[in-house]
Amino acid sequence: MYRLNGNIWIEAKDGALIGVGRMELLEKIDKLGSISAAAKSMKMSYRQAWELVDSMNKQAEAPLVETSAGGTGGGGTVITQEGRKVIKLYKELLDNFKKFKNKESNKL
Amino acid sequence: MYRLNGNIWIEAKDGALIGVGRMELLEKIDKLGSISAAAKSMKMSYRQAWELVDSMNKQAEAPLVETSAGGTGGGGTVITQEGRKVIKLYKELLDNFKKFKNKESNKL
Repeated sequence: MYRLNGNIWIEAKDGALIGVGRMELLEKIDKLGSISAAAKSMKMSYRQAWELVDSMNKQAEAPLVETSAGGTGGGGTVITQEGRKVIKLYKELLDNFKKFKNKESNKL
Repeated sequence: MYRLNGNIWIEAKDGALIGVGRMELLEKIDKLGSISAAAKSMKMSYRQAWELVDSMNKQAEAPLVETSAGGTGGGGTVITQEGRKVIKLYKELLDNFKKFKNKESNKL
């Protein structure tokens, strides 16, 4: 009994924009309101999370995450309209890929 | 401009059976007639290639590669009927996945 499995991600001009891990990070930022809280909840260092956000913001057609000023711990971090669009697109792709995997697995 | 990218592989009961790298190894074995020549052509150690072949043979419904006895350097290594079937299935999947990627990328 064979089956198909795989990974998908969205790429922008210079490489990966979003995959499962980055989507989870964006959703945690949305829920918790800060990169540091999101990083902590994913057992990731703040630096690592910040670098992922920075990479996404630079890759995307418009930033996905915006942090307002406010001093240490005082600023708010939000997911932008582009960020919500990208999350939605990626979730639709995951759904379609799931259907593709099931269809192709049934042929094996 | 966003686009979809990804990787796919075939799984059997205990995990990955074949992906792009393993397919290349099987094709080199078919062309060159031995695991050691195939390994060398892929700049891979013999041990690594042998372990990949062993993993494929154990995972598959029937062995994909068979080595006939013949002493050091004397045996012949061939791709079985099941091996050819799996390579063909995986190539068809890669073609279909390419179409899926193009179709979905056009929506982004």
